[in-house]
Amino acid sequence: MRVIESFLNGAWQSADGPKTMLVNPATEEVLAEAASARGLGDAVRHAREVGGPALRAMSFRQRGALLQAIAKLLHAHREELLDLAVVSGGNTRGDAKFDVDGGLGVLAAYAELAESLPESPWLVEGEPAVVVRTSKVRVQHLLQPRHGVAVHINAFNFPAWGMLGKAAVAWLAGMPVVSKPATSTSLLAHRIAELVLAANILPPGAFQILIGSVGDLLDHLGPQDVVAFTGSADTGAKIRGHRNVLAHGVRVNVEADSLNSVVLGPDVQEGSELWDLVVRDAVTELTQKTGQKCTATRRILVPEAALPALRDALEARLGERAAQTGNPLSKSVKMGPLSTAQQLADARAGVAALRERARIVRGDPQRGEFVDVPAGKGFFLEPILLEADAAAVLDRSAVFHRVEVFAPVATLLPYDGSVAQAAAIVGFGGGSLVSTVYSDDREYVARAVAELGPQLGRLVLSDEKGAGGSFSPGGVFPQAQHGGPGRAGGGAELGGRLGLELYMQRTAVQGGASQLARLFGG
Amino acid sequence: MRVIESFLNGAWQSADGPKTMLVNPATEEVLAEAASARGLGDAVRHAREVGGPALRAMSFRQRGALLQAIAKLLHAHREELLDLAVVSGGNTRGDAKFDVDGGLGVLAAYAELAESLPESPWLVEGEPAVVVRTSKVRVQHLLQPRHGVAVHINAFNFPAWGMLGKAAVAWLAGMPVVSKPATSTSLLAHRIAELVLAANILPPGAFQILIGSVGDLLDHLGPQDVVAFTGSADTGAKIRGHRNVLAHGVRVNVEADSLNSVVLGPDVQEGSELWDLVVRDAVTELTQKTGQKCTATRRILVPEAALPALRDALEARLGERAAQTGNPLSKSVKMGPLSTAQQLADARAGVAALRERARIVRGDPQRGEFVDVPAGKGFFLEPILLEADAAAVLDRSAVFHRVEVFAPVATLLPYDGSVAQAAAIVGFGGGSLVSTVYSDDREYVARAVAELGPQLGRLVLSDEKGAGGSFSPGGVFPQAQHGGPGRAGGGAELGGRLGLELYMQRTAVQGGASQLARLFGG
Repeated sequence: MRVIESFLNGAWQSADGPKTMLVNPATEEVLAEAASARGLGDAVRHAREVGGPALRAMSFRQRGALLQAIAKLLHAHREELLDLAVVSGGNTRGDAKFDVDGGLGVLAAYAELAESLPESPWLVEGEPAVVVRTSKVRVQHLLQPRHGVAVHINAFNFPAWGMLGKAAVAWLAGMPVVSKPATSTSLLAHRIAELVLAANILPPGAFQILIGSVGDLLDHLGPQDVVAFTGSADTGAKIRGHRNVLAHGVRVNVEADSLNSVVLGPDVQEGSELWDLVVRDAVTELTQKTGQKCTATRRILVPEAALPALRDALEARLGERAAQTGNPLSKSVKMGPLSTAQQLADARAGVAALRERARIVRGDPQRGEFVDVPAGKGFFLEPILLEADAAAVLDRSAVFHRVEVFAPVATLLPYDGSVAQAAAIVGFGGGSLVSTVYSDDREYVARAVAELGPQLGRLVLSDEKGAGGSFSPGGVFPQAQHGGPGRAGGGAELGGRLGLELYMQRTAVQGGASQLARLFGG
Repeated sequence: MRVIESFLNGAWQSADGPKTMLVNPATEEVLAEAASARGLGDAVRHAREVGGPALRAMSFRQRGALLQAIAKLLHAHREELLDLAVVSGGNTRGDAKFDVDGGLGVLAAYAELAESLPESPWLVEGEPAVVVRTSKVRVQHLLQPRHGVAVHINAFNFPAWGMLGKAAVAWLAGMPVVSKPATSTSLLAHRIAELVLAANILPPGAFQILIGSVGDLLDHLGPQDVVAFTGSADTGAKIRGHRNVLAHGVRVNVEADSLNSVVLGPDVQEGSELWDLVVRDAVTELTQKTGQKCTATRRILVPEAALPALRDALEARLGERAAQTGNPLSKSVKMGPLSTAQQLADARAGVAALRERARIVRGDPQRGEFVDVPAGKGFFLEPILLEADAAAVLDRSAVFHRVEVFAPVATLLPYDGSVAQAAAIVGFGGGSLVSTVYSDDREYVARAVAELGPQLGRLVLSDEKGAGGSFSPGGVFPQAQHGGPGRAGGGAELGGRLGLELYMQRTAVQGGASQLARLFGG
């Protein structure tokens, strides 16, 4: 049996820890075992004492060149990585590209950003501020890399994008990384780490990978460290509330559950280009990565009059996709399995919970036969569409406003077509990563920005004019903030230059005008 | 007996809750009782449903005009407020001005900032970003006021500045405020609230004051709310780790304990202007507000060779100040009492703890006789200077790196004169609000920015040229970030426009280039 191990403290670890079986989620064939590691305090110190100083000794542009080199290296191994994503993650080839190419895209975007950054060891923010009109004292805000380690705890759904997308930003900011992939899909993250570490692109200590359990890692963190976590709100709350994290004021960023919505404006007519886009986007967001995206659509707000037509259109399109669900190695398959047996059990339990306040309009959560899959094998769930009635929708405690079913499952919610009601319903979700408004009504859209915006980390606006060239809302661009308030974790990652702030400390430097000018220019 | 009450839900509350005695800390004369309130869930809803929409219906400039009007109103009552600060807070007149004028200063600075802000309901950040070169899709980051309530939990040491400084920023951002002053010095905060509320300057629901216990306030908060807390790290950790706060992802900002340092560069010669400034600043930072400032100096790093001369200079100056300690109503008094009996007990216990690793070089923690104070009355502690030896200083677990004595107490710490060692020692404090470097050596100062900066929210640079016109480092300007990493709470307040971000939600708006241009201009 193949065993994958951690790379910590400058070396691949021996596989003496407890092991977890890794399986192909389409066939349940065993692929490898993941071995947990020990000595995490040493790994933290190695990052802080070796990796951090080495990265900080480089300029932003030099660090950007590292990202470029890593992107180039991994691009040369892209086919191998895509194949591994299909077998180990239940991804279709399209899903695998979404993950792997997404990771390469963040590396490339931050390498490009580096070219616009200064040669100085810090980022100067704005102009020096006058504090008292009659005085020469000024204040200049600066961002500098934190002197700790960036701990990345990633979700199972994006082993490549999750790891590379977080690490690219930390490295450019100047922080060393300990990356902990979710165990179930860690084969792909492990292979990427093997390639990057073997190529010796990064300075020693800048990159460590922790396979298996997170162990006592959080106990070793201190005031200059950063934890960036993606996963469930429960685990996010445990990290934020961890005794040592609270005691030392460790900086924590959380991306968690999110009941992302789409809102159909009352002006969208059946048969219009925008209507077709709504249908196309909804099918993509339900079925891409088998619905296992933190940005996938969970609630579809539709004016009551338009609901039957949208229901019919989605039923038809999701029905086609249901027939194309199976082993992603098969050419005819367009949707693969969920990632683990636990995900499948959770998803079925989630659908059962949704049924307390909504009815299934298409899909069978118990269906057991799928394309090119041995009978009874694999962690499959076909696309499920539910629908609630208007009274349930306006109940803020209704289950579909609380429970994210991390699977190809969404609920149709009728509303009265007003921005006010749409904003209230979206808000019942308690804060989301993304929502989309489809409308050509300028007044409606402007009000939606003001009323929905603060509930969201990202708001996608789709109109008839842009319908042909838009992107499905669940895609996360490195230039756009990824994160959302409240239930979505209250965090923020990516967003171009803004993303660097997670890994940097802002300091107000107060001194004489000429002294600051000498230090920081201008 | 006079009883002060909360203003919640549009009305002054009746005094039926448990009561706490408020005393003059110089004489222990009873001044009033503070009554705790009930119905905090209603107060939160009132802020969200009445105050928030009213503030958001105004432009930034209109909200800035509110701040201006409040500043003008309070300025007209300045003498009354200063007198109340002296009697209720143990402040000298200078200390009282530091607090009251500090609060007025933040109102004025944010009123001025408002004039530079747009008429739109949002703040547009930078230019729309291209996400894919061949596409017309763009991303525009926006800041909008959060749709919740800003809960301000303030410390006892700055009842005016704490309340007004936090509220000014929240109001300008567009959020309603529930302000909870520390009970022991709440008379001043209560009087300010009385004046502001009676003047009907703010729209209904924009300002509530919670006197006495915080009760179950945190249980009522949700995903759009913000808590800004100033006080101990222990209480800060309790707020951050509060079950409901974690469950809803309530945004929390903490300013907590901070072992602020000053660092004497090896080039500073005894008798120079810069040397004199070091002494002057140290005396100010030890004794202003009787050392009860979160930014006060706790650790004084001195090159070993210069330590005896600095010790002598501080002994002499602090000795003078010790003789001027007493009832602040007396004209000859330059330092008043601590704020409460508990603060005095904590400070004496803190000095006892420091003595495990340092020796007292001046001051008697048990001294009982002070200027114009009845024998045995008042919560007085004279200035205490301690000194550690080099071996203790380099022990990261040494008590003076961990325990903040919130009183006129500091410890001299010898070091080898290198930036590397100074940064290590400052870092043993686990993150601070502010530190000051005194040096004319440009190389030394530039290295200090890089090495000390990330440990700090604010770094003050003092050189010979600026010595005459500088400000003592413990003063917080509204234009400079106030907050620090790690033990200091990991928070950030003020800092001009940056300060608004605490009360606003950043949203990435994704849409077609022309659509974004229509909405946001440019």
